[in-house]
Parts: sequence; C-alpha cells; structure tokens
Amino acid sequence: MTNIKELVDFPIIWSHPVQWGEQDAFGHVNGTVYFRWFENARIDYMNRIDSEVTMHAGRIGPILATIKCDYKRQLKYPDTVHLGTRVSKIGRTSFQLTHAVFSEQHQAVAATGDSTIVILDYDSGIPQRVPDSIRTQIAAMQSSPNQNE
Amino acid sequence: MTNIKELVDFPIIWSHPVQWGEQDAFGHVNGTVYFRWFENARIDYMNRIDSEVTMHAGRIGPILATIKCDYKRQLKYPDTVHLGTRVSKIGRTSFQLTHAVFSEQHQAVAATGDSTIVILDYDSGIPQRVPDSIRTQIAAMQSSPNQNE
Amino acid sequence: MTNIKELVDFPIIWSHPVQWGEQDAFGHVNGTVYFRWFENARIDYMNRIDSEVTMHAGRIGPILATIKCDYKRQLKYPDTVHLGTRVSKIGRTSFQLTHAVFSEQHQAVAATGDSTIVILDYDSGIPQRVPDSIRTQIAAMQSSPNQNE
Amino acid sequence: MTNIKELVDFPIIWSHPVQWGEQDAFGHVNGTVYFRWFENARIDYMNRIDSEVTMHAGRIGPILATIKCDYKRQLKYPDTVHLGTRVSKIGRTSFQLTHAVFSEQHQAVAATGDSTIVILDYDSGIPQRVPDSIRTQIAAMQSSPNQNE
Repeated sequence: MTNIKELVDFPIIWSHPVQWGEQDAFGHVNGTVYFRWFENARIDYMNRIDSEVTMHAGRIGPILATIKCDYKRQLKYPDTVHLGTRVSKIGRTSFQLTHAVFSEQHQAVAATGDSTIVILDYDSGIPQRVPDSIRTQIAAMQSSPNQNE
Repeated sequence: MTNIKELVDFPIIWSHPVQWGEQDAFGHVNGTVYFRWFENARIDYMNRIDSEVTMHAGRIGPILATIKCDYKRQLKYPDTVHLGTRVSKIGRTSFQLTHAVFSEQHQAVAATGDSTIVILDYDSGIPQRVPDSIRTQIAAMQSSPNQNE
Repeated sequence: MTNIKELVDFPIIWSHPVQWGEQDAFGHVNGTVYFRWFENARIDYMNRIDSEVTMHAGRIGPILATIKCDYKRQLKYPDTVHLGTRVSKIGRTSFQLTHAVFSEQHQAVAATGDSTIVILDYDSGIPQRVPDSIRTQIAAMQSSPNQNE
Repeated sequence: MTNIKELVDFPIIWSHPVQWGEQDAFGHVNGTVYFRWFENARIDYMNRIDSEVTMHAGRIGPILATIKCDYKRQLKYPDTVHLGTRVSKIGRTSFQLTHAVFSEQHQAVAATGDSTIVILDYDSGIPQRVPDSIRTQIAAMQSSPNQNE
C-alpha cells in the first residue's frame, strides 16, 4: 500500500502487521499497544534526523514529555496498520509529533496520537533549544512527498 | 504505605511493585508501561461500581475514547508505584478518570494521566447517557476517605 | 531475504523487524519477546492448515502444552529476524513445532524453540487424535520448498 | 497466603495479582506472560544472593541460556499467582531454577518452568565456574524454610 490518501500530509509512514497477541480479552487490539506503535513510528522519524541530539548518545537528547491517543475504531487481527507521522508543532525547546493510524481492514484512520518531545540536558534537567540543524531537517522532511516504505 | 499526602484527593489507590522487565534499553520504565498501569487502575476503579453497564457483559458498556500521560520523572526498578484514581469530569455520555503515579523512590508524583470513558451501545455505536446509579456511586466514592489497600 | 540457507529445512518463514521497545534494560531483546515471536510464527503456520480443529472456533482445538527457547546469541535493535517453523514431531494427540530465529545482523541462528500443541476437547479436557486432514496438510507443507514471504 | 503446601519445597515465593491485560483474545493469560513472571521470580531469587557475579555489574555475570514452561491449567483475571522458585540442578558453570506457578483460584499448580543460567565472561563469551560463595548461599537458601512474603 503506497498511496493512502488519508496519510498524504504525513511525510513518514511506518507499517506493521497487527500481531494476534496484541489483542486483549475483549478481542480487540489493547489500548496500550498503540503507544508501542507510536514509539516505533517516533523512533523511525527520529532516526531520519541526522543529529547527535536525537541519538541519546550524549548529554543532551530527546525525552518524551507527554503522549496521548484518541481511539476512533477498534482493531482486530488480522490487519495491517500504517502510521503516518509528522511534526505538528515546534517550539523553543520541544516539538510535537502527530500520528495517524490507518487500518487496512477499515480503510480509515482508527486512531490519532500526539507526542511532545523535549530536548533535555540529562545532567541538569534543563530543557535546551531545539538546534537549527534539527529544525532544518524537519522542515525538509515535512515538505517532501510522502515516503511510504 | 497507607498515607500518601500527594494522593489524598484520590479515593482509590492501586499499588504495584515496578517489574525489572518494565524497563527499556534506556534503563527506565518504558513509556508504554504507564498505560498498562492506568488500565489496571481503571479496571480497579470500575470494579468498585456495581452496574451492568461497567461490566462489559451486555450490549451497553464502557469504551476508552482517549488517554494521555504526562511524564514528570523517570522511574527505575526497584520501586513501588501507587496510582491514585478519581473521576475528574462527568458529562452526559462520558466521564474522565485522572490518575497520579506516586513513586516511593522519588517520594513524588512521577506522572499523571487522564482517561475518557464513553458509555456506548456496542451494536449501534451510539453513546448512551451515564446511568444515574453510576453517577451516584462515583459521587459516593469521591466523597469517601482515601481507600488505600 | 528470500534465501537463508540456515532455514532451508523450515517450510514456513515469518519475518519481523526488531522493535526498539523489545529491548530491556540490558540493551538486548528481552527473553520473553522470543515467545511472542514463536506465537506469531505458530499462528502463521496454523493459519495455513485448513481445518476447523486449528481454528479455535469449535469445541475441539489446539492448546499450547509446553514451549521452550534456547538462546544462542543476544539480539539488539536494529535487526530483522526470520523465524523458520516446521513440524518436528507428530504424535497421536499432539505435534511439536520447531522454530529457528535467524538474525540478519548476526547472519546466524540466534535462538531455537520447540512448542508442543495438543488437540483438545475444550469441554472435557480430553486430548483428541490429530485428524488425518491435518496430518496430510502438515506432510505436504513439510515437503514443499521453503515459502519465504 | 503464607502456607501453600504445593510450594513447600520452594524456598522463595514471588506473588503477583494477575493483571487483566495479561489475558489475550482467548480470555486466558497469554502464554508469554508466564515468562515475564519467571523473570520476576528469577530476579527476586538472584537478588537474595550476595555476589558481584549475580549483579550484572562487572565483566562476569549470569545469562539465561534456556527456559521452558509446561502449562497445566489456563488462568484468568482475577486471580493471584504465587511462584515458588528453587535451584534444581547446579553444574560447573551453570545452574537450573525450577518454578511452580500456584493459582489461588485453582488452588493448584497451573504451570511449571525451568530456567538454566550460565555464569559467563561477557567479554570472552566463555562460561565461568559458579563461584563457591554462590554455591554456599544457594545451599543455605534451599535448606531454609519456605520464605513466603
């Protein structure tokens, strides 16, 4: 599936076949699983930014400050979900990623999510300005055509 | 720990020793785990309401519509967390639970969360009015003293 | 990767990109995760058998009786694992699946596993003879060339 | 529950209320969850041994080589499980832990498991002799009365 019109505004798409074991005793994908998917999509997005600050390698790096999910439709196995991810806000020391979870079975967006990432000095705990090199790369990704895998 | 002043406004407390395996490769409790904890706390709260509508047994029942977490401190094993839960809003067809995650190691609230539960007719997909019996029981729980386990 | 010589004896291959969150605080894929992978590979294998008995739909169906994993190499993100699955034993009321976990990063088998599945009458709890139609289909799969996805 | 006769031969007991989300779409505790429980019980056992070698702090430490589970009864929420753990074999470079999962609802052992731990030089990958101090402490634990929490 390389052309999902519902995800056209999302430059990065991470795809995942629903695992049977991701369902809970109600027979639907458990609500916590979406956050594992968001994590995967977030890491996939971050890995495309070439910066020491997004690498968790040094003293300054990203930290997840807040995350939310709005559930719209219940998912079941088998299905494949495609998570579109884009930067929806960028502030002085943080930026927000917005995710849309497109379900092949439903042919619709089944959930959306927002994650706020803060750039932190891990030692002092003080938020740091998002470096210009990251801003530039985000801007470039956002304006590039949808890169489905 | 039966007297946590940070949780005094939360009528229900669910406690949980952090599992080593709840940590991820950064050596902290993974962000998705808090949602499993919220789920446990939510079920614990719901189980205290005596109503067919909270039981998932019939055609009308609760559904999680949205959930969010604000992370304030990073947690590690070993620790024990105490999740306070209270109803923070109650609308016509939904109500909101607010959770606070108190960490024994930090002696502080390490995260907070909000879950919105809608009462749904599972067949039609139409939200239903929160029954009066549930409103009454929530009100009674909210006004009762903190029930630490 | 459609030709993995280490998996040549395994008719069915299920592939999976390692998720970052599958790692634990030691920075390796957690030991419990292999069992989720085995579950996925097992379901994938079972779904290729056309029989009511493998469907969990009726009174008689499969149940996992025992499962083990031998760990040979530690895995990390990023990597992709390919799980080969074959029936390694077939008895009167049960059969055994053997899995091999091939790691692209290691270019080697990183773990092996065995699962014993019993065909059970869920009501009486009495094991049932593995139906001939299942035996025939397993034999056909085993003798067919490796079906990489 | 401090006197479980089925666990009388297990010096260490780790107890855990079944979490609702540990159930899968069949409405039973998922088979992978037992391995998380074994992990918790194993860590609990290891933490009682005072040795640098069990700490993962230095160059020599424990590694899980193989693990298996025999499922005897299906578990559901709500229930509380008590995992008895004892050393069932001790070799030159490894030892085996045996776990029994006692279910309060069933009043019976619902599963058993075995884990083999090797003492490894992480750098060279060469197994090391289990130090005498560990052997002594294991012997002392094994001969002491059941220490239920």
